[in-house]
Amino acid sequence: MTEMDINDYMHGLGTGARNASKALAKASLHQRNDALLAIATEIEASAPDIKAANVLELIKAREAGLDEAMCDRLTLDDTRIEGMIANLEQVAALPDPIGAIDEVRTMPSGIRVGKMRVPLGVIGIIYESRPNVTIEASSLCIKSGNATILRGGSESLRSNEAIARCVARGLIRAGLPEQAVQVVGTTDRAAVGSMITMPDFIDVIVPRGGKGLIERITRDAIIPVIKHLDGNCHVYVDSGADLSMALDISDNAKTHRYGTCNTMETLLVAESEASHFLPQLSERLRAKGVELRACTKAKAFLPEALDATEADWWTEYLAPILAIRVVSDVDEAIEHINRYGSHHTDSIVTEHHGRAEQFMREVDSSSVMINASTRFADGFEYGLGAEIGISTDKIHARGPVGLMGLTSQKYVVFGSGQVRV
Amino acid sequence: MTEMDINDYMHGLGTGARNASKALAKASLHQRNDALLAIATEIEASAPDIKAANVLELIKAREAGLDEAMCDRLTLDDTRIEGMIANLEQVAALPDPIGAIDEVRTMPSGIRVGKMRVPLGVIGIIYESRPNVTIEASSLCIKSGNATILRGGSESLRSNEAIARCVARGLIRAGLPEQAVQVVGTTDRAAVGSMITMPDFIDVIVPRGGKGLIERITRDAIIPVIKHLDGNCHVYVDSGADLSMALDISDNAKTHRYGTCNTMETLLVAESEASHFLPQLSERLRAKGVELRACTKAKAFLPEALDATEADWWTEYLAPILAIRVVSDVDEAIEHINRYGSHHTDSIVTEHHGRAEQFMREVDSSSVMINASTRFADGFEYGLGAEIGISTDKIHARGPVGLMGLTSQKYVVFGSGQVRV
Repeated sequence: MTEMDINDYMHGLGTGARNASKALAKASLHQRNDALLAIATEIEASAPDIKAANVLELIKAREAGLDEAMCDRLTLDDTRIEGMIANLEQVAALPDPIGAIDEVRTMPSGIRVGKMRVPLGVIGIIYESRPNVTIEASSLCIKSGNATILRGGSESLRSNEAIARCVARGLIRAGLPEQAVQVVGTTDRAAVGSMITMPDFIDVIVPRGGKGLIERITRDAIIPVIKHLDGNCHVYVDSGADLSMALDISDNAKTHRYGTCNTMETLLVAESEASHFLPQLSERLRAKGVELRACTKAKAFLPEALDATEADWWTEYLAPILAIRVVSDVDEAIEHINRYGSHHTDSIVTEHHGRAEQFMREVDSSSVMINASTRFADGFEYGLGAEIGISTDKIHARGPVGLMGLTSQKYVVFGSGQVRV
Repeated sequence: MTEMDINDYMHGLGTGARNASKALAKASLHQRNDALLAIATEIEASAPDIKAANVLELIKAREAGLDEAMCDRLTLDDTRIEGMIANLEQVAALPDPIGAIDEVRTMPSGIRVGKMRVPLGVIGIIYESRPNVTIEASSLCIKSGNATILRGGSESLRSNEAIARCVARGLIRAGLPEQAVQVVGTTDRAAVGSMITMPDFIDVIVPRGGKGLIERITRDAIIPVIKHLDGNCHVYVDSGADLSMALDISDNAKTHRYGTCNTMETLLVAESEASHFLPQLSERLRAKGVELRACTKAKAFLPEALDATEADWWTEYLAPILAIRVVSDVDEAIEHINRYGSHHTDSIVTEHHGRAEQFMREVDSSSVMINASTRFADGFEYGLGAEIGISTDKIHARGPVGLMGLTSQKYVVFGSGQVRV
C-alpha cells in the first residue's frame, strides 16, 4: 500500500471504531459482560486455529533469527490461551467502571452539578510481540465502553488476527458491533504514523513496548498518549530502620523478578546503618548471583563490590545487578531519587514517623512506599482488578492504570429552569 | 537571539522553574497563601508602574493598527487591577487542593494503598493579549504548588513584566523562590517552539487563545496539552417541554453574552413543539437583534428567518446569530449534537424523565445539562472557585478546569515489612 492508501485504510478503521464507540457507550453492563464471556467461549473453541497461526509465526520468527526471549513472548501455548480466557472472565467480574455520578452539589444558583463517569471513546493501543495483549487490551476496552484499534507486532499479525476473529464473533453474539475491536491488518510502519495523527478517530494512544517505541510515539503523536517509560526504582534504608525488615524488602525488591519495571535498581543506605546492613545484604544477594556496584563509602563495607559510576545511578539494569550508595540522611536520599530516578516507584524502610511522612510527600514518583517492597507497584496488588499499563505520566493517570484510567468524567447539570443572571 | 540562544534561554527558565517547583511542592498552605496576599499588596503598591508600562504598550498597539477589541483586552485600568487583587484574595481563600490522601484501602497482602493529591510540577501557560491572565494563572499555579512559565502576547510583554516583578517580590516575601513564576522575556516565536518541546522542564502546557494558536501548539507539542477549543453549544427543546422555561433558557443561552464559548449557537426543537414555540422565540430574539437562520421545517413557522445551510450547523458564531433546526425526536437531537457540536456544553429542556436520562448519558460533551442555560458551564458557577480554562479534552480534565486540574494523584503505600510472594 502507498502511504495515502494506508491513511485511507486507517481512516476506515477509525470511522468504524468511532461509530462502534457510540454503541458501546450505550451498551448496558450486562451486554458488555456478555460480550467478554462470549469471546472467552470463542477463544476456547478456536484454540486450535489460534495455535496453528501462532506456530507458523514462530517458525518464521526462528528463521528470521529472533532471540529466544522474543520467541517466548510470541508463543501462544495452552497455558497462555487459558490465561486469556481467565483474563476475560476476571474482567467480566469487575464492577462497572462507567455510569456513576459523583460529587453532586447544589450551587447558589440552584443548579445541581455533578460528574458522570463515561468512556473515553476510541483507544489506540500499540504494542510489540506479545499476542495475548490483544485480549488484555480488548477486555479492558470493552468493559470500559471504549472501542479500540490494536496495532501489534508485525511478527504476530496472524496470531492477533486469529484472536481478533474470536473477539468479533463474541461481540456479534452480544449484539455489539464487531468494529468495537479492530486489529490493524498491515505490518507497514506508516500505519503507526497514521494512527497517532488521527485525533478525529482516536481519543488516546496507549503504547506498550520498549523505550524507543514509546519515545517515538510521544514525539510524533498529536493525540494524548498514556505512556509507560522506564522504572529506575529505589529502596532507602533509613537511620534506625528495622534491619531485618530492610533486608527482606531489599532482597525481594531486587530478586523477586529482575526484568520488571518495579524492580529496585539502586539501594540507598543511611550512613549510620551502612556498617551493619551492607555486609548482611551482600551475603544474601551474592548468594543469589547479584552483582553489586557500590559508591566509595559503601565499598568500605563491601570490599567485593565493583565501583559504581555516575552512569549506574541513571541505569535501569533489568538484570541481577544492584547499585548501592551511602547517603547522609533522608534529605540526600530524596534528592538522589528525584534526580536520578524515573519517578516510577520508590520505598523507604524506616521506623521514624516524621521521615516517613517527608519521604512520602517529597519523593516525586507515581508510587511512594513506606516499609514495603517496590514489587507491589502493580494493578492487581493495588486492587484495580486489571491493568493496561503503569503510567509514568502525571496527567490523567499516574501509576498502575486500571479500568478507571480508560474513562473520563463529564459534568452533568440538573436544573429546573435556571438562567444565568 | 538565534534559535540556539533561545533554546538555551528557555532551558534556563526551565531549570529555574524545575528547582522552584520542588520548593513549592514542599511549601505549606500558609506559605502559599502568604505569597498570594503579598503579591496582592505588591500589585496595589505598584499600580502606577503597571499602568505606565501598559499605557506605552497601548499607544504602540494603536499605532500598529490593532482593533479596538484587541486594545480593550490589552488595557489595564484601575478596575482590572482591582480585579487582579480580588482574584489573588479569592484564590488565597480557597481550600488547599493538595496533600489529601483518599481511597486508602487494605489489600489482601496487608499493604494499605491510597492516592495522594500532589502538584503537577511545572505548568507552561501560553496566552494572547490579556495581561491580567498573568495574575489569574500565577495565582492558580502558586496555590496548587506548581511552578509556572508564562508566555503572553508580544504586544503586552512590558505589562506582563511589570506584573511579574510584583509576583517575584511577593514570592520572596513569603520565603518562596522567585523562579516559581517566570514570564518569558522575549517576543520571539521560537520561544513557544522551545517551550512546548522541553518535557524535562515542563509537565503540561495550557494554551489560552484563538483556535489557530491552540491547534498549532497541539500539533507541535511533545508535552501533554490541556486545550480549550471551540464551543458550538446546543439547546434542545423536547416534546412536551415547559415552553415558558424553554423560552427563558434559549433566550439566556443565546443573548446573555454573545462572545463566550458556552453561548448557544444552534437551537434544536422537537417537531411537536415547533409551531407553538418558534414564533414566540422569534419575537423575543428579534427584539434583541438576533438573526435567525432556520432549516426548511422551521422556516414554516419563521417566515422572516434566513435559510440555514449545512455550514451553519458547524459554526460557532460568537455573534447575535442563531441557527434553528426542527428534529423529529430526542434521538435525532442527540445525533445532531454529537455530529456537529464541539463536545463543549449542551442542554435539554424537558419534562420527560427517560429522555432527560438518555440525553445526559448519550450526549458526548464536557457539560450536559437538563433544564438549565448553557451559560452555567463555568468554573465559578460549578463551585470550583476559579478556572484556568474549559477543557475540550477528554483526558485528565474535562470541562471547567479549576485547581484540581493542576494536580495529579500519586499512589502511596503503607506497609509493615511486606514483600511480594
